[in-house]
Amino acid sequence: MATFGEAELPLVLVHRPPNFHFPFKHRLQTHFRLLDPLDSDPPESTHSFFSRHSASIRTSAAAGTLLSPTLGRHFPPDVADLAVALLIDVLRRVSAGFRYVRAGLWARNGGFPLGFKLGGKRVGIVGLGNIGTEIAKRLESFGCVISYNSRKKKPSVPFPWYKNVYDLAVNSDVLVVCCALTEETRHMISKDVMTALGKEGVIINVGRGALIDEKELVQLLVRGELRGVGLDVFESEPDVPQELFSLDNVVLSPHCAVATPECFDALEELITVNLKAFFSNKPLQSLVPEMLSRRYEVGTMEPASVLDHVYPKGPAMDGGQIASRDPRQDSYWSKI
Amino acid sequence: MATFGEAELPLVLVHRPPNFHFPFKHRLQTHFRLLDPLDSDPPESTHSFFSRHSASIRTSAAAGTLLSPTLGRHFPPDVADLAVALLIDVLRRVSAGFRYVRAGLWARNGGFPLGFKLGGKRVGIVGLGNIGTEIAKRLESFGCVISYNSRKKKPSVPFPWYKNVYDLAVNSDVLVVCCALTEETRHMISKDVMTALGKEGVIINVGRGALIDEKELVQLLVRGELRGVGLDVFESEPDVPQELFSLDNVVLSPHCAVATPECFDALEELITVNLKAFFSNKPLQSLVPEMLSRRYEVGTMEPASVLDHVYPKGPAMDGGQIASRDPRQDSYWSKI
Repeated sequence: MATFGEAELPLVLVHRPPNFHFPFKHRLQTHFRLLDPLDSDPPESTHSFFSRHSASIRTSAAAGTLLSPTLGRHFPPDVADLAVALLIDVLRRVSAGFRYVRAGLWARNGGFPLGFKLGGKRVGIVGLGNIGTEIAKRLESFGCVISYNSRKKKPSVPFPWYKNVYDLAVNSDVLVVCCALTEETRHMISKDVMTALGKEGVIINVGRGALIDEKELVQLLVRGELRGVGLDVFESEPDVPQELFSLDNVVLSPHCAVATPECFDALEELITVNLKAFFSNKPLQSLVPEMLSRRYEVGTMEPASVLDHVYPKGPAMDGGQIASRDPRQDSYWSKI
Repeated sequence: MATFGEAELPLVLVHRPPNFHFPFKHRLQTHFRLLDPLDSDPPESTHSFFSRHSASIRTSAAAGTLLSPTLGRHFPPDVADLAVALLIDVLRRVSAGFRYVRAGLWARNGGFPLGFKLGGKRVGIVGLGNIGTEIAKRLESFGCVISYNSRKKKPSVPFPWYKNVYDLAVNSDVLVVCCALTEETRHMISKDVMTALGKEGVIINVGRGALIDEKELVQLLVRGELRGVGLDVFESEPDVPQELFSLDNVVLSPHCAVATPECFDALEELITVNLKAFFSNKPLQSLVPEMLSRRYEVGTMEPASVLDHVYPKGPAMDGGQIASRDPRQDSYWSKI
């Protein structure tokens, strides 16, 4: 039961997928009373929980899959860092070498088979947004040669642009996949694209699992038709294809590209400032009205459906940002 | 037994430590007849082998520990790449996350504990030679803040210089150790220096194992008094302290910082060109006369001792370079 003090705090509904940790939740609780359906034992379905509480809640803090482009700027460095780590790991066989040491094979069998050089590798970046740009910046310092694929050529970018990902693959040693998942980009890294990349090709995915045709990827790896892959994301997380576990040229990471405490500290600060502003009817630091008209991710619950069908009267908090049902968000909410 | 064709090829003595692979040896054999004491079964001691063959050999190809500063320029990118990989791995817990996925814990226990951000970390580079400079260049692209320790301040370098490594540690979140091992630098990363770095400190070593007091390092790690370490080198390779195997914040690599085929291709080319020039009495592409007056590594056989005591009449081939007993190397050898 809430204490008297807690009961006076503004109510905020927490909307998060079950596998998303909310590391600063306890700190937000010093400012707000948080209602999280996943705190019930057993966890309550989000829809039933939302319906039950919608009368008393004025805003919700959504986390995890609902990252807007504006908010995303806090995260690209962490994602880019992990993408580079996965690439060096695959090429230089860092994880495989570590297993070799741990298994006592260094002392028993001698030196470890060679890895491959980063310098000079042609890296094709699939999706040159904030994250892709951060990845390019880092890989240039290693002497990699960058090109990219995106819907439109970016006039301010010095790297060669490929209109389609197949041509990018033909001209690359490495594909780094970091674009958004939409109906159009689902399985864009198809068997054809991977075959075009070739037997010495490496694929890194820090975008979304379904950007790659995972079944075909596994088949190509099992048949030795790719040099290696580094994957932070998978089609059916947290399930990872078991065939990948026995392959020495595969590096797997549990979808933790965006996951440093420093990043969450910045996010917590933004959420707190925005929620406090919201409850004081002051202007918000960041807005994502575009969220309502967009599908953010195929196969996940979208904010629009949450707002329209389950929780019709409030704005949704996307990390540190408020998604309004009305682009004139401030004036709209001041009327409530 | 050598065939007639082989017997006509110039004789080259191969000098390498037992754990050093010589991946292009078979290709050199198309141009030269190689004598390698480690090919004997059981391997013959280098000294006895050198003495036995010294009358018939005019030059030797030394590999492994005898890397000169000039030759070293072929290798810094690979070493720097691995140093960065180890640092991201330790901070972002890539290897630990991989083990988590492989053990099936992602599906069973949910999200993986957070790693730490690279951006903003104060990285102290111990030894800002070719390798340290390459590491600094890469880490700047990740937003790390670089400073360094070396015997003398480098006038052309923009980073803050610390005269002693203790002060560098006090002012750093991460130490990257990549200086040469000498009597002066042995155990320079002492217990005091590591304690100065502090409990949130990270150490990466791609130099030589004995630069760090390994026993003290292990003790500090076991007691949780460092955030983590990434080690490519160890005091008694290939033996690795067993205590490190069970620690989740440790990343181990089997001394493979310098180990890409692209790098060895370049080295093979240089060795071949130099040896051919030597046997034709033509000027050599690279020389390391300074090798004779220097101790390259504590505890290993030095080229000076090889030349002076075992193999007095020839120059030593250090990778692609000829070490002469006389700085006027060409004229000296043309007299033989």
